[in-house]
Amino acid sequence: MNAKSPSQKKYAIGVDFGTESGRAVLVEVETGREVSSAVYTYAHGVIDEQLPVEGAPVRLGPEWALQDPQDYIRTFQETVPDVLKESGVSPDDVIGVGIDFTACTMLPATKDGVPLCDLPEFRRNPHAWVKLWKHHAAQPEANRLNEVARQPEYTFLDRYGGKISSEWFFPKVWQILDEAPEIYAAAGRFLEGADWVIWQLTGEETRNSCTAGYKAIWSKREGFPPDAFFKALDPRMEHIVDEKMSRRIVPIGAKAGRLTERAAGWMGLRPGTAVAVANVDAHVSVPAATVTEPGRMVMIMGTSTCHMLLGAEERVVPGMCGYVEDGIIPGLFGYEAGQSCVGDHFAWFVDNCIPGRYEREAEERGIDIHQLLEEKAARLQPGESGLVALDWWNGNRSVLVDADLTGLLIGMTLATKPEEIYRALIEATAYGTRVIIEAFGKNGVPADELIATGGLPDKNHLLMQIYADVTGREIRVAAARQTPAVGSAMFGAVAAGKAAGGYDSIVEASQRMAHLRSDEIYRPDPDAQKIYDRLYTEYCQLHDTFGRGGNDVMKRLKQLKAEVKVQAA
Amino acid sequence: MNAKSPSQKKYAIGVDFGTESGRAVLVEVETGREVSSAVYTYAHGVIDEQLPVEGAPVRLGPEWALQDPQDYIRTFQETVPDVLKESGVSPDDVIGVGIDFTACTMLPATKDGVPLCDLPEFRRNPHAWVKLWKHHAAQPEANRLNEVARQPEYTFLDRYGGKISSEWFFPKVWQILDEAPEIYAAAGRFLEGADWVIWQLTGEETRNSCTAGYKAIWSKREGFPPDAFFKALDPRMEHIVDEKMSRRIVPIGAKAGRLTERAAGWMGLRPGTAVAVANVDAHVSVPAATVTEPGRMVMIMGTSTCHMLLGAEERVVPGMCGYVEDGIIPGLFGYEAGQSCVGDHFAWFVDNCIPGRYEREAEERGIDIHQLLEEKAARLQPGESGLVALDWWNGNRSVLVDADLTGLLIGMTLATKPEEIYRALIEATAYGTRVIIEAFGKNGVPADELIATGGLPDKNHLLMQIYADVTGREIRVAAARQTPAVGSAMFGAVAAGKAAGGYDSIVEASQRMAHLRSDEIYRPDPDAQKIYDRLYTEYCQLHDTFGRGGNDVMKRLKQLKAEVKVQAA
Repeated sequence: MNAKSPSQKKYAIGVDFGTESGRAVLVEVETGREVSSAVYTYAHGVIDEQLPVEGAPVRLGPEWALQDPQDYIRTFQETVPDVLKESGVSPDDVIGVGIDFTACTMLPATKDGVPLCDLPEFRRNPHAWVKLWKHHAAQPEANRLNEVARQPEYTFLDRYGGKISSEWFFPKVWQILDEAPEIYAAAGRFLEGADWVIWQLTGEETRNSCTAGYKAIWSKREGFPPDAFFKALDPRMEHIVDEKMSRRIVPIGAKAGRLTERAAGWMGLRPGTAVAVANVDAHVSVPAATVTEPGRMVMIMGTSTCHMLLGAEERVVPGMCGYVEDGIIPGLFGYEAGQSCVGDHFAWFVDNCIPGRYEREAEERGIDIHQLLEEKAARLQPGESGLVALDWWNGNRSVLVDADLTGLLIGMTLATKPEEIYRALIEATAYGTRVIIEAFGKNGVPADELIATGGLPDKNHLLMQIYADVTGREIRVAAARQTPAVGSAMFGAVAAGKAAGGYDSIVEASQRMAHLRSDEIYRPDPDAQKIYDRLYTEYCQLHDTFGRGGNDVMKRLKQLKAEVKVQAA
Repeated sequence: MNAKSPSQKKYAIGVDFGTESGRAVLVEVETGREVSSAVYTYAHGVIDEQLPVEGAPVRLGPEWALQDPQDYIRTFQETVPDVLKESGVSPDDVIGVGIDFTACTMLPATKDGVPLCDLPEFRRNPHAWVKLWKHHAAQPEANRLNEVARQPEYTFLDRYGGKISSEWFFPKVWQILDEAPEIYAAAGRFLEGADWVIWQLTGEETRNSCTAGYKAIWSKREGFPPDAFFKALDPRMEHIVDEKMSRRIVPIGAKAGRLTERAAGWMGLRPGTAVAVANVDAHVSVPAATVTEPGRMVMIMGTSTCHMLLGAEERVVPGMCGYVEDGIIPGLFGYEAGQSCVGDHFAWFVDNCIPGRYEREAEERGIDIHQLLEEKAARLQPGESGLVALDWWNGNRSVLVDADLTGLLIGMTLATKPEEIYRALIEATAYGTRVIIEAFGKNGVPADELIATGGLPDKNHLLMQIYADVTGREIRVAAARQTPAVGSAMFGAVAAGKAAGGYDSIVEASQRMAHLRSDEIYRPDPDAQKIYDRLYTEYCQLHDTFGRGGNDVMKRLKQLKAEVKVQAA
């Protein structure tokens, strides 16, 4: 017999922990086929108004965003039994488990891994809970941290495009120290939710190289910043790494351990099943989108876009989010850039700028309003609208790393139609992507081909064609329906190893389990390219005027807005 | 008896010829009270697709806009009998008639004043018809005319802010010569519709100083440009003034003549009733808004805004539309500036950018969508939106005189609401007005107080308050409901003269017949002013960057748009 009989087939499970829900996918190890999937919507979702505790309400400040760690455990309990049941696969044939997470999503815990928010004495203290990636209340700490980090004795900012974000690990920890020193003192461990989850599965603490590298200023060659740096932030933080973290960072692709009895019981899996070290949603998508080598950039396109690219060598690329050796694929430097407003851009437009007659037309024709707009916008030629936008409605992540930038639209006349503005917003995000690609290219990290994944490529084909025309690059689309979860399952199969029916490396796993859609290739149209080259020149000039200090009107308007709000309050 | 008995009261009639309709108002001479009014919607309206002729259709090119001169005659026939009837006023008590017109709205006629389009042999030739003010197909001629006019031997461009518009008299005549030399040859007269109408009333040709000065490059001191100038345009035009026009220009405020039997018959008025020389809608509104002296600027605010200001001396103010001695009030220089997109701006926004839920909210509450937006926008503090716009959706008339400029909006975030954009557009038009006021002031023509009239002041009180706050000037509102028609009636009363129960000067007529609303005064709020000063600084910087050559992206985008349209066609 050439083919394995069904009972010989092996499976891996990937669990993707998102912002509002967690999702498990059961994947066939040999082919990457997604056999079954299940979603659990977190009981407490994003906690941004008040803590889910009994008694007097505990309200949160502006920019806060928390999660409940028990929602992660419930995700295992609620989804894995379902995917097993739906698929009919025996737990004996599930050889490995992997997970991916939002990041930096971090929490304080005891030395044994008990989240401080689960201790009665700390339950009513917001700083005891999980700080979600989009918790933005640590901006003052981030500002001060960047100030210290800019001193000449430190060079690590170069690895992060010149700036540490308020979303990242140390600003969040420092906010705890600033505002709740009792929580800081009580914490035996500060760690990523990703690593905490793996700890719960295996009973052993591990820390993955991806979150450590991208979010906690760690590098394989230099480790964490020196204690002197932390002391300069706050003397109480001098020994934070040795006291409350760990210097043992495990590379992506390694095995974290095996399922404990208790964790196996949550899921209906076999105790001892291999568990991969934790990973991050965007990063785990790269091998799941077939990319394990330099030259092909993965774009994870949703509300925002992450651009992931591999390089054989270490390069400083100004304005990217960061680069980490072994951060995506062992043995390579993983480069990450981002655009903070992509799908969100179109959602804003549809919510705020679409006339009633368009809504009625979509309704009468039984199509989605985005579909209607895409259809109308697709009838326009490049350049026909006479519009150019700067896609900074949510600031600019790469390459300007400036959250205080805002949107710009230019070229309107009394004949300008909604679909023209819609198309201009799509085009603006495409120009933004081209700026990133060119910044990588100029600095020795070429991106010759683009692989798209995430929600947008399925939803908007016009957008994909515009990206091809604007970037002058062929774009292919990852085949996986749940790319991050499939990527996690791939790492689960690697954790199991070839001997157990899995793979010995993520490269091998990717070659077998990851696929591109064969029927969906976007190729640049030479005529459109020529026009977009001219429009891109305009975009770049506006980009530099308003983004690089030519006219800081956006910042001044934001400042004035803040002053007016303070006065009104 | 102190008061005159009703039978002793005298009345004047003003007829305002607009773009789509003509309107007559019967006014009490002593008080300016509007006793009755009537509107006639032109049978042929704006002719911009095909001529209203029998037989095979005669289609018009892009940017064409014509009118039928018989619609003007029908306006007299349809409205004046009605205002007499509605008021119960005897024709014996109507002492004078005045009219105002759009301009430059011009036509070719025989030496006897018969419009060429009324001659069977020319009826199917579009160039034989009335070219309406917004006929924009003479742009090539305007461009060539400006080129010639910029030669050092000519200085008259200084009187027109440096540029002659394609809407004006000579570009339109020249287009006739270029495209229909047979019409040019057949024309014994080229004249303004305004003057043609007066000719029909009085049987005598007169040409008014207002249209001659503002639209036909005439000045009291220099007359028309020399024949050499017209020869330089086209040798066939060398003697156009003597051959097809007239050098006798009659100042505003003079009597044109008396009603002929025929014209009196159209209207049911007494033959011999005094008729004023023709005037222009914006210009005739100035004394109707109480202004007959320097220092107070009249803003006629509708789809666009005209700014009218008087000065005792001749001043060159860069970027205004023009200045004419005796052009508004005899003995003074009348200065005119303009914003090409005001009410149109808000109409565009409401048509294209208002979400269905706002439309439904307005409907449920039984209010107009503009009202709803005004209400929501009024709740915002100045500066709170973080937005600034350049109000150039329809180009910029004053002070940049550049039709190729387009709109700009800056400062959007994902939290930006429609009412914030709406307010930003209102604010942008207010900044545009301030630029004009400051340009006048810097050049010795101060505007210390503003008088508003037109449709907008009634419709949008928020807008009026914003204008006061942005300009730092008190704004009062003209009391007349139909300001231009009332102004025309005032000139009718002046044509009749004091001996007949009217007035001997427009200044006197204005003092008695024109009023401001006593209960509607917009005063600048000092706190708002401070914030708007900061926003105005931002506006000016963007204005100069995009309007004065810092970044000509708007022009390049328009150019690209035109290329793309040509390729697609």
